Amino acid sequence: MGNTFGRLFRVTTFGESHGGGIGVVIDGCPPRIDISEAEIQRELDRRRPGQSKLTTQRKEEDRCGILSGIFEGKTLGTPLTIMVRNKDARPEDYSEIAGKFRPSHADYTYEAKYGIRNWQGGGRASARETIGRVAAGAIAKKILSGLYAHFEIVAYVAQVHGIVASVDRAAVKMKDVEKNIVRCPDAVAAKKMISLIEQVRDEGDSVGGVIECVARGVAPGIGEPVFDKLEADLAKAMLSIPATKGFEIGSGFAATRMRGSQHNDPFEMRGGKIRTTTNNSGGVQGGISNGEDIYFRVGFKPPATIALQQKTVTNSKQQSELAARGRHDPCVLPRAVPIVEAMAALVFCDHALRQNAIRSSSR
Amino acid sequence: MGNTFGRLFRVTTFGESHGGGIGVVIDGCPPRIDISEAEIQRELDRRRPGQSKLTTQRKEEDRCGILSGIFEGKTLGTPLTIMVRNKDARPEDYSEIAGKFRPSHADYTYEAKYGIRNWQGGGRASARETIGRVAAGAIAKKILSGLYAHFEIVAYVAQVHGIVASVDRAAVKMKDVEKNIVRCPDAVAAKKMISLIEQVRDEGDSVGGVIECVARGVAPGIGEPVFDKLEADLAKAMLSIPATKGFEIGSGFAATRMRGSQHNDPFEMRGGKIRTTTNNSGGVQGGISNGEDIYFRVGFKPPATIALQQKTVTNSKQQSELAARGRHDPCVLPRAVPIVEAMAALVFCDHALRQNAIRSSSR
Amino acid sequence: MGNTFGRLFRVTTFGESHGGGIGVVIDGCPPRIDISEAEIQRELDRRRPGQSKLTTQRKEEDRCGILSGIFEGKTLGTPLTIMVRNKDARPEDYSEIAGKFRPSHADYTYEAKYGIRNWQGGGRASARETIGRVAAGAIAKKILSGLYAHFEIVAYVAQVHGIVASVDRAAVKMKDVEKNIVRCPDAVAAKKMISLIEQVRDEGDSVGGVIECVARGVAPGIGEPVFDKLEADLAKAMLSIPATKGFEIGSGFAATRMRGSQHNDPFEMRGGKIRTTTNNSGGVQGGISNGEDIYFRVGFKPPATIALQQKTVTNSKQQSELAARGRHDPCVLPRAVPIVEAMAALVFCDHALRQNAIRSSSR
Amino acid sequence: MGNTFGRLFRVTTFGESHGGGIGVVIDGCPPRIDISEAEIQRELDRRRPGQSKLTTQRKEEDRCGILSGIFEGKTLGTPLTIMVRNKDARPEDYSEIAGKFRPSHADYTYEAKYGIRNWQGGGRASARETIGRVAAGAIAKKILSGLYAHFEIVAYVAQVHGIVASVDRAAVKMKDVEKNIVRCPDAVAAKKMISLIEQVRDEGDSVGGVIECVARGVAPGIGEPVFDKLEADLAKAMLSIPATKGFEIGSGFAATRMRGSQHNDPFEMRGGKIRTTTNNSGGVQGGISNGEDIYFRVGFKPPATIALQQKTVTNSKQQSELAARGRHDPCVLPRAVPIVEAMAALVFCDHALRQNAIRSSSR
Repeated sequence: MGNTFGRLFRVTTFGESHGGGIGVVIDGCPPRIDISEAEIQRELDRRRPGQSKLTTQRKEEDRCGILSGIFEGKTLGTPLTIMVRNKDARPEDYSEIAGKFRPSHADYTYEAKYGIRNWQGGGRASARETIGRVAAGAIAKKILSGLYAHFEIVAYVAQVHGIVASVDRAAVKMKDVEKNIVRCPDAVAAKKMISLIEQVRDEGDSVGGVIECVARGVAPGIGEPVFDKLEADLAKAMLSIPATKGFEIGSGFAATRMRGSQHNDPFEMRGGKIRTTTNNSGGVQGGISNGEDIYFRVGFKPPATIALQQKTVTNSKQQSELAARGRHDPCVLPRAVPIVEAMAALVFCDHALRQNAIRSSSR
Repeated sequence: MGNTFGRLFRVTTFGESHGGGIGVVIDGCPPRIDISEAEIQRELDRRRPGQSKLTTQRKEEDRCGILSGIFEGKTLGTPLTIMVRNKDARPEDYSEIAGKFRPSHADYTYEAKYGIRNWQGGGRASARETIGRVAAGAIAKKILSGLYAHFEIVAYVAQVHGIVASVDRAAVKMKDVEKNIVRCPDAVAAKKMISLIEQVRDEGDSVGGVIECVARGVAPGIGEPVFDKLEADLAKAMLSIPATKGFEIGSGFAATRMRGSQHNDPFEMRGGKIRTTTNNSGGVQGGISNGEDIYFRVGFKPPATIALQQKTVTNSKQQSELAARGRHDPCVLPRAVPIVEAMAALVFCDHALRQNAIRSSSR
Repeated sequence: MGNTFGRLFRVTTFGESHGGGIGVVIDGCPPRIDISEAEIQRELDRRRPGQSKLTTQRKEEDRCGILSGIFEGKTLGTPLTIMVRNKDARPEDYSEIAGKFRPSHADYTYEAKYGIRNWQGGGRASARETIGRVAAGAIAKKILSGLYAHFEIVAYVAQVHGIVASVDRAAVKMKDVEKNIVRCPDAVAAKKMISLIEQVRDEGDSVGGVIECVARGVAPGIGEPVFDKLEADLAKAMLSIPATKGFEIGSGFAATRMRGSQHNDPFEMRGGKIRTTTNNSGGVQGGISNGEDIYFRVGFKPPATIALQQKTVTNSKQQSELAARGRHDPCVLPRAVPIVEAMAALVFCDHALRQNAIRSSSR
Repeated sequence: MGNTFGRLFRVTTFGESHGGGIGVVIDGCPPRIDISEAEIQRELDRRRPGQSKLTTQRKEEDRCGILSGIFEGKTLGTPLTIMVRNKDARPEDYSEIAGKFRPSHADYTYEAKYGIRNWQGGGRASARETIGRVAAGAIAKKILSGLYAHFEIVAYVAQVHGIVASVDRAAVKMKDVEKNIVRCPDAVAAKKMISLIEQVRDEGDSVGGVIECVARGVAPGIGEPVFDKLEADLAKAMLSIPATKGFEIGSGFAATRMRGSQHNDPFEMRGGKIRTTTNNSGGVQGGISNGEDIYFRVGFKPPATIALQQKTVTNSKQQSELAARGRHDPCVLPRAVPIVEAMAALVFCDHALRQNAIRSSSR
């Protein structure tokens, strides 16, 4: 259970890191949307391992294929299936962990839940699962661009360990993000981040950080009170990404140290539209978009897989030790940027369709 | 849409702040659970306005009644309906806001979404809606206590504006929380918080803060990969509470400044069980509980309703000003404690039932 | 579980025959629909006991109240709650069945499922539950009338036991149906049906029959392949009504004795539109409406409650006998007509909203 | 939308008749179930085209592969993906229908709904979609056999056009059904059916019929009041199968001509258990299984694809004619038997898991 996301734009991912492949079925995709494998691949390439010296050097091409739901380049309205075959699997890298629980991985909890696990490379808990999300996100972005004239989502690395970037959230564009391999639009901070990640990797360790995401051009009125508030669904979407530990929208935790008189966003007329003077709300009020930029931050922990020796226990409850072999990411942030964008796009797309349903039916 | 929470333990809330009443229908409640109105009322009383000098002085008794789903004191397995009639409504307090959008409230976004709104006291966006959640949470706690021998959830105010409490998360009990009106188990910090809230109230302003919550005794194995991870559903649950801006589980945003070698929780054998030495994971790994304490933090903004004069616009797009009249909370934290507990209980209960479904069917 | 119906227009019913009351929460109702208690009451009155000599003589006024979701006569887009208080309960009528399982009732199966049951009058399995459906159906009809210019649903009694009515399905109107107390538009057959039902009642027995329903004016294109075909959701809706045993759409079981050349509905141009010459499909092809009249038939068994002595067993597994006391319907058909219409309206409304969601989002 | 079935055992099918392939993702499959491709293939072979002279002579091997969710022969609890590649496609067979709507097919309604359709062989509306259902059904049967000691589902052809079989519903076994190519356990009727189907095929026409299905060994207590009654979900499941027009459970439409005294199933003690003397209820009372055999009937229309010339219109609204070319089934009944079994198994499996969820959590 739990492998489907969304109410109207319904995304179901499948597949383990080792096995036939990884994919996604999208049910509820509107018809007659132009889709090509190339534009899905473009997003997948941003997530792909081996894309730079900062990421794992596993050679996974992650070449996607559309299996169903498309005809003559357009969506049919029927389930869209996108799949990536698994390649470059080296199960021998994992032989040791068949019998030991890797600290802060899902090995023990999968065993506790299911009484069985695919110990090859993380199985279903592997971040390879996010391939399906990124592919679906590419479709969602396309749909949103059709619905909203000036729609765009831009995510970027805002912090790696102690290095905090300075970014103009209102102006930053995807091309600024893609300028460097760490996906941080602040060139100075980016350079420091790259050095730090390389150093940490060489030490056999790992680091965490923060991704910030801004969505522009979302119309006012999407998001559903009371449980499916836009920020609630965004929070769920983000916390469902592997290695995330926190989410904050708008002013976030900083709001906890503010007063109402300081935090409230006054309304004003601007360009003939009702706008807010400030945007501590992060573009969402009462769970519903207000037309301002929607922005939020996601905290990632350092990856659990490290080359350093760690204490653990075995399947048979014996004390033991473990050091990761194989090829791993010392910092997931650069590759997580497109995942954050994809999950945000899934949330917006689902809520946009939900709003369509009622808007067209009230007189 | 969006008024139902949960897959198997399904909670649907209804009602506006002004109108017939507020309530909840719980579908999927297991049968033969002993329930009395008194134990639901106990939780509602912790959420009730007017319970102390710190909260709004509205006189709402919030007396609940069970309308269906119960027979001779036990649940029937059929929908449980619990309702609270609205009282002490003073629509005249709200006459001004019929024509003006209150800053950082949901007035404008409801209007944008629906083209209509109940401007009396916030309507559906009022925190009165959470009565249904707290009532359902009381049932969920009862069910969980039946499933897990040592189950308990304790939430408390950990921070108000700049005042940070010092609390032993592993030991704190509900009775420690209920010792003072601000629901902070650190007596020294509590005193300061109370002073600050009173001062802020007298200034016509408001403050935010942080609630921390710990759940003990949850068995390993609940939570569903990949989208319905336990932390993802908790994040959604918390961000669906009015006035919340952030969520973090375990190490949270602090993890972003840690290294893997420091953050990983080594496994060890303790009391014959597989345990972790540290608990940066916050009791959840790969989206599934690992048997350790589950703890998380929720950031609340300062309430939007303040007595100070603010800029805004009218329904007819004219620039205007507004100052709240009526009786409001200068800080929602003390009353939000039972809401956080309730939402956490709903998540755990739903996931516990989901795990029951597969556990009993695999051989 | 199982007390919610629909994906976007979501109807949750609650309540037992004896207890606080019976009601419904509708989540996903579009905003700004004019609704009055009077128009809901009109439908409830068609379902009400005691409306004629043919039905149970229980004095249940079934007066509805709208508790939430409405403001100044219009829907708010928030959950609409409608409730009817229980009255005229005579638990003493049921004292015998506390200890005995009534044949072909749900007593034994509720006990088997839940290990507990409200034995007063059927509890949740009572047809009183359908009050919530009829109330929700009144709203759904209103929405559909706004969406489709010539929308109408007409259900009628087409058969009681061996008496088969002759009805012009293409022309029959609700006023023809309401002309007599058995709700059969064929006056001659109606008279015979009334006599038969009275005779059967006097004999302490009961009879079944068939309700036919036709929906006109539904636009082509609603219904979702592959599992949520329009006929599949109609079938589920109808078989969820108490006492139903069968469903057939269009040609129905008669199709099983036809050849393709005879059964196929040729397309033709008529009035500038693509139409079918015949309508064996019943207005649905491949699960999607084709713009023709949608018609279907529902088979009802004779009510299980009869005054005649019957064999049964007790809670403690002893052989025993039982004869119903109290006031019961010898034939449910006349009162089931508005229920069939209501459930059909719920299906059409839900699917109309689903189609809105994708129609507005494809270019 | 509408491509997912079930609440806990969730089956999502994907794929068109022409394109990459056809498949299914099963979310919510319990872990540690032994599954092999061979046992899935066994069911698929019963559905496969070309299996006898009665079916279409298309050469589709329909060889399945398990892509995910399995490890060392056992289910992992993660999504199980099963896929069949499309082969032997002859798009040239369909060139004519690109521009014409086939009578009583889904061509026109898909166009009306989506504004686009894959005209090659029916696309998503093709019965090839049921491959995914049959594959999922094989898993569901396996799970049910683990849950219920004496579980079995047997479906068979009970009627073809005017030929009605005589079958002992209480005793019939799958091996009796598989004895002949028409899958009718009455050898005499089977012979007549085969002759009729061959004759009809030679005439370029088609015929319908009835499939009956009996499930034995289902424990009392599964099925959910009020909307998700067991018979309601079975009705939906059956009416979602292509070419079905009717569903009846137990006494079915025959009940409409019975009296209560005749229809009621008296309870009695038998073998130390509470049983019913007769079984007009069809094993379900109040929507919940009572432990007796669950049996129902499904009416199929004659296939719409016939070689005879028919009237129709073109995409551009011109009157036209059409005669099917290619290789088609003159009667779908023999191949639909495993589909009916599969859909029934999906319903029972989902409800069995739902019942597990609450049974284990009430004390």
